[in-house]
Amino acid sequence: MKYGITETVKTIKSKIKVKDIIYDIVEKKTNAIKYFLEGQEFNQTIVFGAYLCGNYMAHALLKDSDEVILVDVYPHLKDMIVSEKITFMDSNKFNLALRNGKLNPDLIVDITGIGGISPEILSKFNPEVLIVENPKCTYDKDIFEIDNSMDRLNTGKKRGLLNTFRSSKVSKTSGTMTLTIDTVLDSCAEIKELDGVLYALPNLKYYEGILFHEKDAKKFIGEVNAPAITVSCLDEYIIPEIDRILSKNMEKINSFVVKAK
Amino acid sequence: MKYGITETVKTIKSKIKVKDIIYDIVEKKTNAIKYFLEGQEFNQTIVFGAYLCGNYMAHALLKDSDEVILVDVYPHLKDMIVSEKITFMDSNKFNLALRNGKLNPDLIVDITGIGGISPEILSKFNPEVLIVENPKCTYDKDIFEIDNSMDRLNTGKKRGLLNTFRSSKVSKTSGTMTLTIDTVLDSCAEIKELDGVLYALPNLKYYEGILFHEKDAKKFIGEVNAPAITVSCLDEYIIPEIDRILSKNMEKINSFVVKAK
Amino acid sequence: MKYGITETVKTIKSKIKVKDIIYDIVEKKTNAIKYFLEGQEFNQTIVFGAYLCGNYMAHALLKDSDEVILVDVYPHLKDMIVSEKITFMDSNKFNLALRNGKLNPDLIVDITGIGGISPEILSKFNPEVLIVENPKCTYDKDIFEIDNSMDRLNTGKKRGLLNTFRSSKVSKTSGTMTLTIDTVLDSCAEIKELDGVLYALPNLKYYEGILFHEKDAKKFIGEVNAPAITVSCLDEYIIPEIDRILSKNMEKINSFVVKAK
Amino acid sequence: MKYGITETVKTIKSKIKVKDIIYDIVEKKTNAIKYFLEGQEFNQTIVFGAYLCGNYMAHALLKDSDEVILVDVYPHLKDMIVSEKITFMDSNKFNLALRNGKLNPDLIVDITGIGGISPEILSKFNPEVLIVENPKCTYDKDIFEIDNSMDRLNTGKKRGLLNTFRSSKVSKTSGTMTLTIDTVLDSCAEIKELDGVLYALPNLKYYEGILFHEKDAKKFIGEVNAPAITVSCLDEYIIPEIDRILSKNMEKINSFVVKAK
Repeated sequence: MKYGITETVKTIKSKIKVKDIIYDIVEKKTNAIKYFLEGQEFNQTIVFGAYLCGNYMAHALLKDSDEVILVDVYPHLKDMIVSEKITFMDSNKFNLALRNGKLNPDLIVDITGIGGISPEILSKFNPEVLIVENPKCTYDKDIFEIDNSMDRLNTGKKRGLLNTFRSSKVSKTSGTMTLTIDTVLDSCAEIKELDGVLYALPNLKYYEGILFHEKDAKKFIGEVNAPAITVSCLDEYIIPEIDRILSKNMEKINSFVVKAK
Repeated sequence: MKYGITETVKTIKSKIKVKDIIYDIVEKKTNAIKYFLEGQEFNQTIVFGAYLCGNYMAHALLKDSDEVILVDVYPHLKDMIVSEKITFMDSNKFNLALRNGKLNPDLIVDITGIGGISPEILSKFNPEVLIVENPKCTYDKDIFEIDNSMDRLNTGKKRGLLNTFRSSKVSKTSGTMTLTIDTVLDSCAEIKELDGVLYALPNLKYYEGILFHEKDAKKFIGEVNAPAITVSCLDEYIIPEIDRILSKNMEKINSFVVKAK
Repeated sequence: MKYGITETVKTIKSKIKVKDIIYDIVEKKTNAIKYFLEGQEFNQTIVFGAYLCGNYMAHALLKDSDEVILVDVYPHLKDMIVSEKITFMDSNKFNLALRNGKLNPDLIVDITGIGGISPEILSKFNPEVLIVENPKCTYDKDIFEIDNSMDRLNTGKKRGLLNTFRSSKVSKTSGTMTLTIDTVLDSCAEIKELDGVLYALPNLKYYEGILFHEKDAKKFIGEVNAPAITVSCLDEYIIPEIDRILSKNMEKINSFVVKAK
Repeated sequence: MKYGITETVKTIKSKIKVKDIIYDIVEKKTNAIKYFLEGQEFNQTIVFGAYLCGNYMAHALLKDSDEVILVDVYPHLKDMIVSEKITFMDSNKFNLALRNGKLNPDLIVDITGIGGISPEILSKFNPEVLIVENPKCTYDKDIFEIDNSMDRLNTGKKRGLLNTFRSSKVSKTSGTMTLTIDTVLDSCAEIKELDGVLYALPNLKYYEGILFHEKDAKKFIGEVNAPAITVSCLDEYIIPEIDRILSKNMEKINSFVVKAK
């Protein structure tokens, strides 16, 4: 707690950080995939899409797979990978490996979402299990038209669509960044209504700009390590309310894989 | 326009910057005061409260007053003053000038808001006109209880209460920062609903921390000089919509002085 | 509880009825006035405006006043009065009594709101206490312009403005019907978000049409004696939630008299 | 337009009636099905579920089918059917016809939704085309768990899931009544924000109670033939705004069939 402009007004920051919300979503998506896999073990796993979940998912799948390859068109996302056991491939390396016949995955997870990997590339493989993330959430005409996640579910003995939704709330995609932003903004709207609150400020930045335009993975990791919400209020007794409202909104996020075949 | 993660997704920033919203509110408040003053001229004007309006108001009142004194408890806010014609006084200088009988204002404007200047200090003066800002906006039990703006209207031949409201919208105070934040957040909620929008990100920072804890007026001025909203979307044709929605929400802010005596 | 279309879907009605919300608001307004009167006793009280609060207020003021006169331009509103101790006057009777010098109130309560009694009529009296209801709530340019409640506070040794607000919520007037409608609709929006709820239906009618166009006070009393909200849901375990949300929204309503002189 | 309580306040009713919204949704769902059928012609069509769309759909399918049978567990819904060409069957008649081998549909449309027809019954047929309505809309844990629409898509050479969504808005089911209620309530929230509006009243009743508990189809048809929204306001110039806002919200509803096989 710090004083605001005057001693009458206090400034409080949520204990929950932006990264806590991101990790919570990433964990839910990963658990949904693990649940769908039912403990099955694999020789080679390919995860398409490093941002924002891919790294974490690849790490989680190391337990069930002899080899985990993480593929992303952006070479600099390699900097986000912490485990040495994960093989990172950018487009060039992936295409080379593909031509050389080194890729023969029995598990494929595609979380590239809108504008991501093409159905054609996925159809070159013949995995035991293929899981594709459904980037759609609340209905939006344009997003529903452009989405081709069902077309990507074109191979694999067992196929699943990874859905992530927010209960009774509007989010336009199931992307981790979209869900994080909406969770923070909807929480701010609720916190603003508490007695004695002057304003609730979302502590969000354009993280994708940092990662994809500035290409600075370290700065990204630093920026998400900040309290999600700053509240200007009269009394400190609302401190627990802030994190309670954030938690309640985080709990609205649900992730599950629907079997397509 | 920049591409987002993939070429399918675009990133657009509002043309309207945070400072444009701040200045718009500050201008409305200043115009409300000018309108109430009806062209009256003054020998000495004291404006209590430099942040966030005070500097601008003091500047605008230079035309109608031989001398304009801007008083603030925070000495470092002096750095925000651009005009040399405005005399800045921190608490020490103000108290000294008060004791020395150098302060005999015929116009007083108090925009210190919640926890600001005490009714006792204002009662020491006998101005022609006293204007006190009402910090209250949408009803909040605690804020309505702590507010003493009516008690401050205890002197002056002509007295006015400066109100600033948002039409049909919830804001807990009439503070420029509160209104700016709520205008941006309510705009984001509307923009999110547009077809093809993935998310709308408010580009807000805890500006009061920069000014009052870091005491860095320059950094503050730099930070508000940024687009108010970043939008992730499928099509650029929504670009004009973003600023239209922001403008519409800015127009909801109304400022006027109600005569109390 | 009844089954909906199928046995899987249940229909639940709130225990709280429309009239419970109306009475709760009326009681808060009456208590605010009683608190402002501080136990003072009166010879003659005039309450202007029978709808929707007037009857109840007149009844409550019987304890503190030898005579209570309830004035309304609509003669048929006499049917709403339950106590024989209250003298009802329509415009004709009021004007006659005024000319005959029979009206000399020491307490006046004006709850006629927008387009109600004119300041000129009120200025003909010289009461100990005058209380005028402020019909304004959340800021609305047109309503703020048309309101003349401050002009009506033009007589009386002690003067008070009756405010009624909803914490952090938008209502365009402090009228009992406006606050009732908004309380029910905001509650429906919250109930809709509960897990397993298909829809929440506000059980509201255009009561003012029944009272003022159909002129059927009995029908009005019958219609408000209905559950405020009907909920279609999967499980009955949310039954207590419905009334809890309604109660929470009712608690957001606050009424208090601000001393004007 | 009528005057409200005082001549200052006007009462306006939307030109759009409740039935206009219902028919608009029913038409969108029917068009989605027609589009999916691509002009194909059928010998026998069975529509499961008379309420609220079934009757209209059955009527529309008469053009493409020699025989159209409408099946509903509620015998009294027969009263809603206007065309003599449609054969209505309640449970008893349907079971009898099934046993007698008189049912051999080449088109089945199931709009019974949550708690509706069982997958087992549908699996007894072998139609050219089977269309099942997806009752889910915005994510709700309990509703998503109970829904078995995908399980019902268990037969037919060509299979489709009828989806109906509201763009960027929360509705818990795709049911015509749910979408109608939410369209009216969301419109009321928008209308309330217009300058000079005192309140916006949704003119909704518990129609399902009238149809399923009172079993009064005529009363139902009368009740939906009423203006959707009543508005209390200062100026009549907002009249076109009311229907514009309602229309805009009706346009947010989209219906389409997704091919499942």
